[in-house]
Amino acid sequence: MANLDAALAHAQTHREDHLNEFFELLAIPSVSTLPEHLPDMGRAAEWLADRLRALGMEKVEIMPTPGHPVVYGEWLHADGAPTVLIYGHYDVQPADPLDEWNTPPFEPTVVGDYVIARGASDMKGQIFGCLKALESIHAAGDYPVNLKFLLEGEEEIGSPNIAGFLEQHANRLACDFVLNCDAGIHGPEQPSLVCSLRGLAYFELHVRGPEKDLHSGFFGGAVHNPAQVLCEVIAAMHDANGRVTLPGFYDNVRPLSEADRAEIAKAAHSDDDFKRMSGAKALFGEKGYTAQERMSARPTLEVNGIIGGFTGEGSKTVLPAKAMAKISCRLVAFQDPAEVAIQLKEFLTAHMPDTVTWELHQHAGARPGFTDRNTPWMDSAITALKTTFGKDPIFVRQGGTIPIVGLVKEILDVDTVLMGFALPDDGIHGPNERQYIPNFYKGIETYIRFLVSLGK
Amino acid sequence: MANLDAALAHAQTHREDHLNEFFELLAIPSVSTLPEHLPDMGRAAEWLADRLRALGMEKVEIMPTPGHPVVYGEWLHADGAPTVLIYGHYDVQPADPLDEWNTPPFEPTVVGDYVIARGASDMKGQIFGCLKALESIHAAGDYPVNLKFLLEGEEEIGSPNIAGFLEQHANRLACDFVLNCDAGIHGPEQPSLVCSLRGLAYFELHVRGPEKDLHSGFFGGAVHNPAQVLCEVIAAMHDANGRVTLPGFYDNVRPLSEADRAEIAKAAHSDDDFKRMSGAKALFGEKGYTAQERMSARPTLEVNGIIGGFTGEGSKTVLPAKAMAKISCRLVAFQDPAEVAIQLKEFLTAHMPDTVTWELHQHAGARPGFTDRNTPWMDSAITALKTTFGKDPIFVRQGGTIPIVGLVKEILDVDTVLMGFALPDDGIHGPNERQYIPNFYKGIETYIRFLVSLGK
Repeated sequence: MANLDAALAHAQTHREDHLNEFFELLAIPSVSTLPEHLPDMGRAAEWLADRLRALGMEKVEIMPTPGHPVVYGEWLHADGAPTVLIYGHYDVQPADPLDEWNTPPFEPTVVGDYVIARGASDMKGQIFGCLKALESIHAAGDYPVNLKFLLEGEEEIGSPNIAGFLEQHANRLACDFVLNCDAGIHGPEQPSLVCSLRGLAYFELHVRGPEKDLHSGFFGGAVHNPAQVLCEVIAAMHDANGRVTLPGFYDNVRPLSEADRAEIAKAAHSDDDFKRMSGAKALFGEKGYTAQERMSARPTLEVNGIIGGFTGEGSKTVLPAKAMAKISCRLVAFQDPAEVAIQLKEFLTAHMPDTVTWELHQHAGARPGFTDRNTPWMDSAITALKTTFGKDPIFVRQGGTIPIVGLVKEILDVDTVLMGFALPDDGIHGPNERQYIPNFYKGIETYIRFLVSLGK
Repeated sequence: MANLDAALAHAQTHREDHLNEFFELLAIPSVSTLPEHLPDMGRAAEWLADRLRALGMEKVEIMPTPGHPVVYGEWLHADGAPTVLIYGHYDVQPADPLDEWNTPPFEPTVVGDYVIARGASDMKGQIFGCLKALESIHAAGDYPVNLKFLLEGEEEIGSPNIAGFLEQHANRLACDFVLNCDAGIHGPEQPSLVCSLRGLAYFELHVRGPEKDLHSGFFGGAVHNPAQVLCEVIAAMHDANGRVTLPGFYDNVRPLSEADRAEIAKAAHSDDDFKRMSGAKALFGEKGYTAQERMSARPTLEVNGIIGGFTGEGSKTVLPAKAMAKISCRLVAFQDPAEVAIQLKEFLTAHMPDTVTWELHQHAGARPGFTDRNTPWMDSAITALKTTFGKDPIFVRQGGTIPIVGLVKEILDVDTVLMGFALPDDGIHGPNERQYIPNFYKGIETYIRFLVSLGK
């Protein structure tokens, strides 16, 4: 079995190579939601399959789904050792608004201690770090555990096909637990492990009024403006206390216990930190909860996008024919995206005036997720983080959504260790996304320690 | 002096030529608000200057303004006859949304009895019709009146430089009245004359929250979403009765008398007509007023456009950094766009939460306009319309805004006859704008009768 010190030494001496190879992956604009990037999705999958082969993985395959394919590979020769299914995704969010990037999003650039690129933090930096940890272990001997890979291409569009894929290939994907690298830590000096994740229900709401755009002078006053209707309906989705008004929205939300709140407080960023990270003038949200509680243990409803009418330069006196909003809810236990869809439909039926028509589409959603803290893999993860960072990890509830966590529990009946090294201010999903390079290296070290210790 | 019958005969026998030449003008994409069409604006001005020269106009000149130029020309040899300043504009609205046009907006196409093109109705069809009336008169003898032309290129962006131009060239533009061709009639069989116009106050409201787009999972619940704030503020701009809630908005609005309401009712389209013309499922607006009253004699506030966050295909879980809306008010006597700006600022100061920053920009506005019904030119207009259409014209309050009407009264101290032949369902400012061809020909005849009768 591989020698830990030799593996760590390999990682240490190959830092520059690893960073350069990382740039190759970042340069592929694998934006899953935009049809024009379909060839790039294929290139990213091929690139990863090549890397798995170079690591000695067997049965490496780009497996089709109804959407973007899954990259699979395995190495199953560590008899008696646990089998780890390593999960990652090779797709990224769109790069717009492009004009707010200081450097081109798919031309990775080092600025100070950061790599700037779309996907640098979410999550090419994390899965690539895990691959380089395996390369370092491989250079120092045999793998200490059995390995399987599940690298998907649709995480950023809500993983619409992953449940079907898990069901179809449940035997092949059988494992003792999942190492999910799509995660972050509390701060550059403070390691952490995720103990819960919020779910997601994502909708697109279309409101249609007049048949075509009208002259606001001739028709202004005579017909209902769909942009105004949309604004009014969205405004009604929160009450004065910042609570979501969909009927029954909080029915399945468990109140936070004192113990919950104390643990959340331990992992909490300060309000000043949140202000600095977000660049917002002030914080805001549901009354009666701290910012950390609101963004991790309480459900929310956000407008992700809105458009209608004339939005170019100058003035155009149009009364728009239609308006559209993308609206999504982050969910906590025991909320269900399908139930939220029913609640939203009920809300819209009650609030939409009969002067317009409307349609609601639901994009892929996810239930909230949990991780079991009392497993041997969690113990190994805690130790690996503590050794690398010199500090006990804290447990955090994560505000984001990783649909796969709930699904592997449901379908493969296994727990997940969420271990990744993104930072809260990496700007994921926004312009100038970045990965903190010292954490990238520490991540490789931690993955090495974690995997080697599992084989003992 | 030109013979009326000969002039009418010329117009009759040159219908095909006139339509073909009309297409040349329509093919020039003279969109004043879009910088990329600057060369087209120049081409349109040159094209009109050439036509004025062909009509025997003198001192034809493309006169600069701080924005797009004014085309001027004059013929002042009808001693003792009145001097008519013919007003028109050669600029058009942007053509977007492009994907909703059935034919390219700047490739004029005849479909049935209609010419389809951007500007066909607003207002190239009208000013071109007037030029062809003059050509027909000119072919039949001398002009019966003195003529001056004021053809501007900034009407669709609110005529920001026309007041300065009128002031600077007041002597040169001196006249007995203005024939403003930027107008329409009630229906294809029902001639009408405009007796009042609504004013316009146009704003752009920017709301900024976080410094950059954030991940809605990490930050959702912690900061205020500027798209949500914008929706809430816009929703608050109307009350449950459809009234505008800006403080003092109705203070200068004169209540409608019974006589006003009776006259408006005479010129009113039916609710079914409005529904057909707009394609809206139902009508809507301020309680206590008919649709015709609401869209002509009552002020309104409309969202002309709104944008924020991710609006492409698919889903992106972003919490947007900013959102923007274009909002405009149509004003009636004695409202003032500058006062409305103060009211809106006051409203926003009261309603905007301190979790965001905001900015309000004002685009060019216009005061409401009136026309004096008791002038010799109005009498001539009534007779010309009655003769051509075989029906008495009705007086209408127009819902749209023509800033120049108020300005020529204020600066040149002259009244306006608004005479044009657009129809309410021409789809101006929207996709598939059209000009009804039979009306185009009737318009030429009416202009001929009107101008010849003034010289008697």
